[in-house]
Amino acid sequence: MNPLLYLDYAGVAVFAATGALAASRKELDVIGFLFLASFTGIGGGTVRDVILGLPIFWVINPAYVLVCASVAVLVFFTAHLVESRYKLLLWLDALGMAAYAAIGAAKGLEATGSPTVAIIMGMLTATFGGILRDLLAGEPSVLLKPEIYVSAAMTGAAIYTLAELAELPTELSTVVAFV
Amino acid sequence: MNPLLYLDYAGVAVFAATGALAASRKELDVIGFLFLASFTGIGGGTVRDVILGLPIFWVINPAYVLVCASVAVLVFFTAHLVESRYKLLLWLDALGMAAYAAIGAAKGLEATGSPTVAIIMGMLTATFGGILRDLLAGEPSVLLKPEIYVSAAMTGAAIYTLAELAELPTELSTVVAFV
Amino acid sequence: MNPLLYLDYAGVAVFAATGALAASRKELDVIGFLFLASFTGIGGGTVRDVILGLPIFWVINPAYVLVCASVAVLVFFTAHLVESRYKLLLWLDALGMAAYAAIGAAKGLEATGSPTVAIIMGMLTATFGGILRDLLAGEPSVLLKPEIYVSAAMTGAAIYTLAELAELPTELSTVVAFV
Repeated sequence: MNPLLYLDYAGVAVFAATGALAASRKELDVIGFLFLASFTGIGGGTVRDVILGLPIFWVINPAYVLVCASVAVLVFFTAHLVESRYKLLLWLDALGMAAYAAIGAAKGLEATGSPTVAIIMGMLTATFGGILRDLLAGEPSVLLKPEIYVSAAMTGAAIYTLAELAELPTELSTVVAFV
Repeated sequence: MNPLLYLDYAGVAVFAATGALAASRKELDVIGFLFLASFTGIGGGTVRDVILGLPIFWVINPAYVLVCASVAVLVFFTAHLVESRYKLLLWLDALGMAAYAAIGAAKGLEATGSPTVAIIMGMLTATFGGILRDLLAGEPSVLLKPEIYVSAAMTGAAIYTLAELAELPTELSTVVAFV
Repeated sequence: MNPLLYLDYAGVAVFAATGALAASRKELDVIGFLFLASFTGIGGGTVRDVILGLPIFWVINPAYVLVCASVAVLVFFTAHLVESRYKLLLWLDALGMAAYAAIGAAKGLEATGSPTVAIIMGMLTATFGGILRDLLAGEPSVLLKPEIYVSAAMTGAAIYTLAELAELPTELSTVVAFV
């Protein structure tokens, strides 16, 4: 579970950063940063745990929320720097999504034993945070853009599920390469 | 439970079709079709099961998701045909909503024994998929339109609850007639 | 628990009123009033209970939904009066939010024992109804406005959590005073 745990923190942090950047584009105050970062960072995992009937991950371990809050404050004070590194963030976003897809698929597989459910949970975990972010920020949903966003999540979840025995780093690099 | 099960598949398929049609109006790619069809098809039932504390229906039986995916792909390749049959689809939509309202009310009544909760769950199940679809597609919510949409759901749920002993076909035709 | 129970009804009623007023601004029919009032009134508490793994409060006690429905009908017939008392309602809104934040924090603290989770649940309970209302009514999210809305909720939740032994009336007046 340890590599998955680190992936989880990384995924939360990266998604929180994209939420905070959305707050920055909308010129919100620091509370808006906190909210958008948190919804984006933990929204996907929350829906995943609710649907699988598991205890919500950040209720068990609130450190995840503190990660989101820290990222939000960090981005609030450094947005001018990060914004110019937007390309970097897109890469991080893809990385976070691949991580999330893998974790969602792992949890779904563990909880139900069904590959179909595992793939769906992987996609849902990876995309729901971004969907929430766009809804709340009043931007066109990422679903409406002809991007490989969702495709990346689906591929990640499918690869993880099909190759649940493969080592995770291999899986990750495959997906990132694909993206 | 058997007639309810068939109704359930039919309701999921019809709602998935309306989600896929929304994807078609927005000229999304096939992934967008899959997502909108799935959210619309199973969104209402998911919220219903979460609120009632039941296991999510499509986690137990992923065939529901495959129904959504099949409908999405079907509509993706035949949207030009289906779009011109929009009137037919509106009728199907009303049918699906009546079915969903009945199922939601049945589940709510079974899980809590409260008629008030049963009526609410019927309405929620019947309308939430469409609400999600409109939110995600960036269209004005169906709630904002002066349609009989929600009224139909409410009537269906109320009729089912009041007449839980009546045979389902009667119930259905009543609601469809009303719409 | 008794003062919390009264606060809960008051919070639900006040939020339902803001939902119904949003329906009034959008010139919806009575069904739209019912839906927006209900989603706003019980949305925050529903998400709170789902995340904490508790039974949903209005499934146990459907009187909450009847409160929303009554408020919706009341506002539907008296909106011209209430609208001109909008200032009063803003005050009530702040009061309702402080009440909700305290209840959410109390439930979160009771269910998990974690102050971090308690503060988050307080904020979430207090703000989610308004977020839903704005999403469904197609208005810019309250999160995007440079208001003290969320700050008030956060303060209320934090104060309640830090001073869980203090008497509630004191807590309430503090927050309202702050707002």
